[in-house]
Amino acid sequence: MESIKIFAPATVANVACGFDVLGFAVNNPGDEVILKLSNVPKVRITQITGDEGRLPQIAEKNTAGISIIKYLEHIGSAQGVEIILHKKMPLGSGLGSSAASSVAGVYGINELLGRPLDPQKLLPFAMEGERIACGSAHADNVAPALFGGFVLIRSYNPLDVVKLPTPKDLFATIIHPQIEVQTKDAREILKKELLLKDAVIQWGNVAGLVTGLFTSDYKLIGRSLQDVIIEPVRSILIPGYQRVKNAALEAGALGCSISGSGPSIFALSKGEEIAGKVARAMQEAFDEIQIESEAYVSEINQAGPLILN
Amino acid sequence: MESIKIFAPATVANVACGFDVLGFAVNNPGDEVILKLSNVPKVRITQITGDEGRLPQIAEKNTAGISIIKYLEHIGSAQGVEIILHKKMPLGSGLGSSAASSVAGVYGINELLGRPLDPQKLLPFAMEGERIACGSAHADNVAPALFGGFVLIRSYNPLDVVKLPTPKDLFATIIHPQIEVQTKDAREILKKELLLKDAVIQWGNVAGLVTGLFTSDYKLIGRSLQDVIIEPVRSILIPGYQRVKNAALEAGALGCSISGSGPSIFALSKGEEIAGKVARAMQEAFDEIQIESEAYVSEINQAGPLILN
Repeated sequence: MESIKIFAPATVANVACGFDVLGFAVNNPGDEVILKLSNVPKVRITQITGDEGRLPQIAEKNTAGISIIKYLEHIGSAQGVEIILHKKMPLGSGLGSSAASSVAGVYGINELLGRPLDPQKLLPFAMEGERIACGSAHADNVAPALFGGFVLIRSYNPLDVVKLPTPKDLFATIIHPQIEVQTKDAREILKKELLLKDAVIQWGNVAGLVTGLFTSDYKLIGRSLQDVIIEPVRSILIPGYQRVKNAALEAGALGCSISGSGPSIFALSKGEEIAGKVARAMQEAFDEIQIESEAYVSEINQAGPLILN
Repeated sequence: MESIKIFAPATVANVACGFDVLGFAVNNPGDEVILKLSNVPKVRITQITGDEGRLPQIAEKNTAGISIIKYLEHIGSAQGVEIILHKKMPLGSGLGSSAASSVAGVYGINELLGRPLDPQKLLPFAMEGERIACGSAHADNVAPALFGGFVLIRSYNPLDVVKLPTPKDLFATIIHPQIEVQTKDAREILKKELLLKDAVIQWGNVAGLVTGLFTSDYKLIGRSLQDVIIEPVRSILIPGYQRVKNAALEAGALGCSISGSGPSIFALSKGEEIAGKVARAMQEAFDEIQIESEAYVSEINQAGPLILN
């Protein structure tokens, strides 16, 4: 095999109550990466589409590129690679765009070289992409993009990632409004301190959400999808946030919050039909304040990256 | 039935990473309460043993008494009740002593009157005992004492209590050193604010602990039994804390932390044999600094209160 085409899924990090520790993957949208083995012993990006010229073409500064470089260093390979990156999801959207490219890249090169590493071991390389994209090596997008499903990052130091189960009727709605929030800005407006009483509410909800995922208790999932710490601050960056969230809940969503650092907003619902209704209600709420948006409805992605060719 | 004798179990609240939201019950120690129906339309305490004269004899100021009074008010009964309270566990020990008495009282009167309420509905009355004992109506001792097992208090407002599963080989070791810490003091030394980065570590661990309970992953339970927020402050009140904790971990405990507001220290282990070894190691560590202690080894109590007669 001389070339490979990989899809990696978009992801929702934080999931309301799980700031920096929870994330899940969806089937749509996602990124596509094509890798070709090359005789030139260098990792190069030969083409990027769908980014409106905004992503760096230098491999070392690109999330897919750096992940592949770090992976090849680790296995001690001087293999040359050409990367074609088809961005099929919006940048700066809070949907794990950089993570999807990283995961597609590192998963693809590992497959192309005949799986020298167990795919479960690829996470640290994909996290290097996050380090250059947002300044720190977060795992709450790359881990669900790589493993699929709901993922808990119990600890960063040492890295301890645990896959959680997904109730079978759980569907995600994601609305991406046509505004942009930089992950760095969304991090900088967060307060560094919080009240203990708010932290208690938050970890009660994290524990409730995990319990709901294990017991398929949709109502408990809904009651637990609350964020008293991050959402009140970051939602200021998203015009119409409360209106859109209310529309989601009135349409039957179990819960609704900011996807990652925003501006995308996600909702979880029981069943695809409700998730579709929720999507329409949320888009209408954005329409009313003249903000265009894209909607995605998906079951929770269980596969992680997919080989397309 | 004119009288009833009830056992209610000691409980470990907080469970390292779950401050105010997690607790579990043990088989030993616990309190015993005897209730007798009386023609005098009043709730009265006729005897308390094992408290060295320290508990209030006035029903309204006693945790068992006030729980029964609130319960009778709720069901609209003027029934007279005489209470005999056998304290079989140390006061101010961090083992949910007040909660055990409350739960035994309210569970007992409900049984004696022919179960006018589903026992699952008794929690708010037992919480009234906590309100007078420590100034706020906490549920992380009363809920596991009433329901048995591991319990999550997802939310206090509204009250939302969820029972968690217990891996079958999980055993608790509890060491009660002969020093006393007042719950109110242990609350007052806590900082009202904390760092977001510490809160993230804590809720990662709460989610990890819940996951470990569901999957019987003892190692994950052990990795998650960490408290970076409360333990560093409260352990100052317990002489020799770090020495005793280290002894527990070296003897094979999965994890070890403060039980409730202390001074008791709990450890969780896989299997009764290790839990016993852990008990001996922890007591020896207290011995070395001339602090006497009592040790309890128990599986996780699943039954909650028990009718003894």
